[in-house]
Amino acid sequence: MADEVILLDFPLSAFGMRVRIALAEKGVKYEYREEADFMKRIKSDLLLKMNPVHKKIPVLIHNGKPVCESLIIVQYIDEVWKDKSPWLPSDPYQRAQARFWTDFADKKIYGDSRSVWSTKGEEREAFLENFKVLEAELGDKPFFVSDTFGFADIALVTFYGWFYSIKTFGQFSIEAECPTIVAWAKRCMQRESIARTLPD
Amino acid sequence: MADEVILLDFPLSAFGMRVRIALAEKGVKYEYREEADFMKRIKSDLLLKMNPVHKKIPVLIHNGKPVCESLIIVQYIDEVWKDKSPWLPSDPYQRAQARFWTDFADKKIYGDSRSVWSTKGEEREAFLENFKVLEAELGDKPFFVSDTFGFADIALVTFYGWFYSIKTFGQFSIEAECPTIVAWAKRCMQRESIARTLPD
Repeated sequence: MADEVILLDFPLSAFGMRVRIALAEKGVKYEYREEADFMKRIKSDLLLKMNPVHKKIPVLIHNGKPVCESLIIVQYIDEVWKDKSPWLPSDPYQRAQARFWTDFADKKIYGDSRSVWSTKGEEREAFLENFKVLEAELGDKPFFVSDTFGFADIALVTFYGWFYSIKTFGQFSIEAECPTIVAWAKRCMQRESIARTLPD
Repeated sequence: MADEVILLDFPLSAFGMRVRIALAEKGVKYEYREEADFMKRIKSDLLLKMNPVHKKIPVLIHNGKPVCESLIIVQYIDEVWKDKSPWLPSDPYQRAQARFWTDFADKKIYGDSRSVWSTKGEEREAFLENFKVLEAELGDKPFFVSDTFGFADIALVTFYGWFYSIKTFGQFSIEAECPTIVAWAKRCMQRESIARTLPD
């Protein structure tokens, strides 16, 4: 029996983009369903049924069973469709590092993202500081943690879509402050999975 | 060469307790170092050096290399000392469920925990609602997700230490509202690793 894979999503969601990139990387065919609209504050009955705890997209429904929370979905995809190269290294210490930077993405990059639009200089400065931490961590490595594209890259790359609007509306330019991150993001954009998913 | 394992911790930390339970479950010998004091707002130089990003305990230093963030440390311990039974099931869907409830522990139980002490009834009610979600999820299972003690149990059980103070100071009793959770916590407390770690 063929797998039935359905993604409940909203096109502009950076968390949904992580899952779309993961599915594209693994070559998984799926049905895309727009089941929420942030602007109109709409959530479908199917979404509320499939994610009753958080009531949030993205939700991956695989053969009828829902998986919620973008990073958990990405790990699930990696473990189910494991014929393609895994996104976590085999070494436990490197795996911990990959999880650390993935967690950093949620807590610091997305978690503090409202402060980009803050009118307070020190809040914007604190947000930029998070990118400088990433800049230092990446150094001269091609990707986060290991030499190959992986879990932390998927978790982090979807914020690249914000860079233009931050420059336009946020009164500072990440491009100018963090050239290493920008070079990494452009490297990621060479992957079809990412170029097709992130907004232009 | 024997493993050198050092835990930077603070005795009252529920996050530190997760790591102590994990190390005890695996029978890992380690050096315990109190490197922070929440009350006095003290953090040692060693802690700042080993966790420069978050500057928080717990940190596990294994043969000189630091691992940070309690849930990442617990997974690391599981993967390094893998001769004892693993805390994550082998089935990808069950693994995703274990990660979901572990993530719920951080986002909802610890994340919303300040509202326990709120003077607003609706905030306390929302906090209690999180426990009712857990109560429904556990149902008649002995442990979260699978029949054996695992990742989500380690992540969740350290809040059991709060029940007494919530009852004393928080104006409501989780025991009375969530008997299934209390029975599960008492089941966990039969494990030496947990009975020795949680406050009496």
